[in-house]
Amino acid sequence: MYGKGLALACVPFYPCGDRFVPRGYREDPHTLEQKLAVIAGLGDVAGVELSYPAEFEDPVPIAKVLKGLGLKACNLEVELFGSSKWKYGALSSRDDAVRSDAIRLACRCMDAAADLGCEQISLWPGQDGFDYPMQVDYREAWERTVDAIREIAAHRQDIRIAIEYKIKEPRTHIHLATVCKVLLVTLELGASNVGVMIDAGHALMAYENVAESVVLASRYGKLFHMHLNDNYRLWDDDMIVGSVNLWETFEMFWVLEEVGYQGWYSLDIFPYREDSLRVIRANLDMVKKLINTARRVDRTRIVDLQRKSDAVGIAEYLREELLK
Amino acid sequence: MYGKGLALACVPFYPCGDRFVPRGYREDPHTLEQKLAVIAGLGDVAGVELSYPAEFEDPVPIAKVLKGLGLKACNLEVELFGSSKWKYGALSSRDDAVRSDAIRLACRCMDAAADLGCEQISLWPGQDGFDYPMQVDYREAWERTVDAIREIAAHRQDIRIAIEYKIKEPRTHIHLATVCKVLLVTLELGASNVGVMIDAGHALMAYENVAESVVLASRYGKLFHMHLNDNYRLWDDDMIVGSVNLWETFEMFWVLEEVGYQGWYSLDIFPYREDSLRVIRANLDMVKKLINTARRVDRTRIVDLQRKSDAVGIAEYLREELLK
Amino acid sequence: MYGKGLALACVPFYPCGDRFVPRGYREDPHTLEQKLAVIAGLGDVAGVELSYPAEFEDPVPIAKVLKGLGLKACNLEVELFGSSKWKYGALSSRDDAVRSDAIRLACRCMDAAADLGCEQISLWPGQDGFDYPMQVDYREAWERTVDAIREIAAHRQDIRIAIEYKIKEPRTHIHLATVCKVLLVTLELGASNVGVMIDAGHALMAYENVAESVVLASRYGKLFHMHLNDNYRLWDDDMIVGSVNLWETFEMFWVLEEVGYQGWYSLDIFPYREDSLRVIRANLDMVKKLINTARRVDRTRIVDLQRKSDAVGIAEYLREELLK
Amino acid sequence: MYGKGLALACVPFYPCGDRFVPRGYREDPHTLEQKLAVIAGLGDVAGVELSYPAEFEDPVPIAKVLKGLGLKACNLEVELFGSSKWKYGALSSRDDAVRSDAIRLACRCMDAAADLGCEQISLWPGQDGFDYPMQVDYREAWERTVDAIREIAAHRQDIRIAIEYKIKEPRTHIHLATVCKVLLVTLELGASNVGVMIDAGHALMAYENVAESVVLASRYGKLFHMHLNDNYRLWDDDMIVGSVNLWETFEMFWVLEEVGYQGWYSLDIFPYREDSLRVIRANLDMVKKLINTARRVDRTRIVDLQRKSDAVGIAEYLREELLK
Repeated sequence: MYGKGLALACVPFYPCGDRFVPRGYREDPHTLEQKLAVIAGLGDVAGVELSYPAEFEDPVPIAKVLKGLGLKACNLEVELFGSSKWKYGALSSRDDAVRSDAIRLACRCMDAAADLGCEQISLWPGQDGFDYPMQVDYREAWERTVDAIREIAAHRQDIRIAIEYKIKEPRTHIHLATVCKVLLVTLELGASNVGVMIDAGHALMAYENVAESVVLASRYGKLFHMHLNDNYRLWDDDMIVGSVNLWETFEMFWVLEEVGYQGWYSLDIFPYREDSLRVIRANLDMVKKLINTARRVDRTRIVDLQRKSDAVGIAEYLREELLK
Repeated sequence: MYGKGLALACVPFYPCGDRFVPRGYREDPHTLEQKLAVIAGLGDVAGVELSYPAEFEDPVPIAKVLKGLGLKACNLEVELFGSSKWKYGALSSRDDAVRSDAIRLACRCMDAAADLGCEQISLWPGQDGFDYPMQVDYREAWERTVDAIREIAAHRQDIRIAIEYKIKEPRTHIHLATVCKVLLVTLELGASNVGVMIDAGHALMAYENVAESVVLASRYGKLFHMHLNDNYRLWDDDMIVGSVNLWETFEMFWVLEEVGYQGWYSLDIFPYREDSLRVIRANLDMVKKLINTARRVDRTRIVDLQRKSDAVGIAEYLREELLK
Repeated sequence: MYGKGLALACVPFYPCGDRFVPRGYREDPHTLEQKLAVIAGLGDVAGVELSYPAEFEDPVPIAKVLKGLGLKACNLEVELFGSSKWKYGALSSRDDAVRSDAIRLACRCMDAAADLGCEQISLWPGQDGFDYPMQVDYREAWERTVDAIREIAAHRQDIRIAIEYKIKEPRTHIHLATVCKVLLVTLELGASNVGVMIDAGHALMAYENVAESVVLASRYGKLFHMHLNDNYRLWDDDMIVGSVNLWETFEMFWVLEEVGYQGWYSLDIFPYREDSLRVIRANLDMVKKLINTARRVDRTRIVDLQRKSDAVGIAEYLREELLK
Repeated sequence: MYGKGLALACVPFYPCGDRFVPRGYREDPHTLEQKLAVIAGLGDVAGVELSYPAEFEDPVPIAKVLKGLGLKACNLEVELFGSSKWKYGALSSRDDAVRSDAIRLACRCMDAAADLGCEQISLWPGQDGFDYPMQVDYREAWERTVDAIREIAAHRQDIRIAIEYKIKEPRTHIHLATVCKVLLVTLELGASNVGVMIDAGHALMAYENVAESVVLASRYGKLFHMHLNDNYRLWDDDMIVGSVNLWETFEMFWVLEEVGYQGWYSLDIFPYREDSLRVIRANLDMVKKLINTARRVDRTRIVDLQRKSDAVGIAEYLREELLK
């Protein structure tokens, strides 16, 4: 068993377009129910993340479907980034009507979560940022963001709010850019139901070491959720887990064990050109292998090497333990 | 007069979507003719770039429209990146049928160019690359790319082929990544009608100094076309010219004057959230200002400072000459 | 008058070596007193930053020299990075003796500051980080860092401690990497004498917008000191202010005026190959020009454009107001 | 046997300073002879790279030492970057006297190589570049660089000249930045004794895929030498081979086997803080393991997967074959 379990969103079944191929690299003929059935059939996956209201509005029928399939909704993502309405921001928008809609949507999403038996929603304010120098009043943007989260958090205490950070894309700069920006907000708010979602690739994009970010969030009791994927450090390539940065991915899993992470291990991949099922399979197999290895390695030896900051010793140990 | 003139593609009138907002940030209710009429109405713009066959198939009616508007087609871009068909490459595709289609399309585009009175087509093999380590046979990919360009170049000598390089996006790695990769191909081919299109932002993404790339391409007689825009160096943000990197943008224009560039100054911007007309206006005004400044500054003084590698002297001179 | 004044460290008079030219690109024949006399002679500079104990141990004679020259010590930097002793960290070191030395040195530096009439010391824990994955225990490192700063802050309340962050160099990863990592520490400590030093180039390296970082630090009442310089975003090139990123540098000064910054504007440049005096002069002239421009522009218009997130309007306004 | 053998420079025995710790992180009490003796004692290392004239001037005694130790000089690096004399460039210098000295030094180095029974020298024009926009005349710089290499190459045909590229450091921009920039020079010169040295880390810094660079250089018959190390893609961290980018490092070795590379596998690491001998050992063990794995894996299967651009299949295959 890996934390609360392995989880998945439906994104890998989407057309996965980009700005040059907006219609995407594949067809998406399946309904949400069909996608969920496929996920349930994978065997390894216990949880799903759903996008609200992009994927569903009414929680009742979905609850039934999930129950029938033996799947658990582990997170509902509030869709605050996928329409032109949010182009200048949602939570930080200077347009009061737009911002109110965003807050209301998040609150409704919390209610839907409760109805679904889901304990958590997530906010990724990806449009809340700026593109050009001097385009926004940073003070205003920060106040509005913090206040919006406060208001959402107060809507109900029984649902957690995981805030996902990212340094850029789709804006050239996003306000909630790094793990510590979100931790700062959570400390200021002091709301027990507000925490951090760490997306491994987002951490890498910000030149964070993912494991260090895990430790920091965990130290403040704020590590709510993990999104797994990989990239070349400079962009959110959303690639197969461990397919670029093997050692840091392993370190992330090792540290998650160390801090006693009890949340979900959720894949957040965007397979533009790859076959949905095969790419999910490859991810699951890598995740399981690395977590199992993290449990197998000699903790005492690693801790001892770390005490001496012994980079060579660690590198040799990892080579011997992980490589055939 | 700026080289052959200022030019524009129709992209700023597109919905300009991204992977999160695939339908784009604006409506696109206008026909190609309407867009061209708007461009003609700008006053400053003499040339247009068209995408073939995405924007038109039959050159005859377009030729008439352009003539009526007093616009010149300065470049036809072969659409080798905008459909899932090319997802594993066009010119370098291991699928012979796909690759043949790409070559045939480029040849047809040359014919369309001739019919339009346009002297040049461009190839941007943006899908010709790879995402994962070990995904492709680089030798095969290189041979196929070079051979495809050779075949296209041989189709007819009276149309130039400008090859546009880019280091990544939409693939995590694109084969024709840098100015010198394209120059290497042109030297190997030895075809007089094959040259380089420098996109200022693509140069920046590759940590090239745009002006240096201009000089290199020009030295080999291969600088065929300029695409103008700006970004934060790490991604192809396609922003307003000079809005991020003022000094290097100015240097690019100064060097284009120095090498006696006689081609088009073409805007290649992607205004996701900005008003099409206003953003074009802002670009044109900046381009004109910087070229005019480049013509105004004291060349002798700059050359003298460069002789001594005098960074401080240059920085002071630029501050005094460019800033109010 | 610019805040408390323009300030300078003696670094530009150093040999300024790198790993390939460790002896540096110039001779350094001058004593500290001679350097200070040169600085005093510049006219524009009112404050100096000194490195303790690298540049002096006994505050008494230096106090006299400064007084005689009419200079004010605006900051004392504790040298916690310049000897192999700190190679695995100072404040976070797992070696208790090394860490105690670091803390003691910082406390002694505070005393020296008091003796010099200097209100502030700075800590830049540049060796406190890691190079390889899994090399350190992040939790330990964080606790030790926070506790060390707490201990130093408690030494005396009358001296401020400005903590300078940087994402890398000389380690491949430094723990105190971003503005919000330091703000998090300051919030946790709750010590009124602990705040942030923002080095403009360090902010750029972390893909921060410097102005946004200024606003955040200021919002928490923690903006203690500004280090000015510029770079190409990917490394701490320590170049002439505004020589690469003109717009964001201007924005930084504009925002510093907006938040009512009352601290020092201190140059932190590292002119490997440039003449010390000329490079300082070029920096001072750029700083003055940009601050004066920031005071001249029409605040109301900017605020109005920001209200609409009007990137085009801002870009046009800046072009018209700043460029000749 | 790995190509011509495994090789090493003496750099790991240096103090390995940086700009903050110019005296370095360790003592360097050993003579060149002592270092060579240690290298000979390693067992696995057959070749050494020496720096001329930094490490020796007279080849006669060194030849004797090497012979006695059973070591072969596999490359002599011309020291064109380690003194302030070259601060504005060596091969491209606008100062004719400086440039002549550089050329003369390279020619003398070729003679020393011949006397040592060494077949190759290398040029790394690391100071030949620029820091600020508009600081240099790129056309001049390019002509001077190409002409200098032509002159050196003509000095004698029996010694090869391997040109090492790097995109930056110590300059913010180095002219010979990428593999294709050097290939362009070699094609223009048409001199059979001029080729490319690929430093794996330098390739990564330029966002090159090292294996692709190997294939390109090899295709033009210009792959003269390999420098092995690793980094975080953004800087020349000169870390243990494979310690960051395992998959791409493996791919590099696999491709070197594919192209039939017959040169040296030379470590180019810079262990600031690590024990010299231990870090060399860790490197050698990783290099041997990865080359042996490259020889073990099923070439037919990989080639088949590459024919289909099957990223998932390759990722799964590598996971199964390389990871325990």
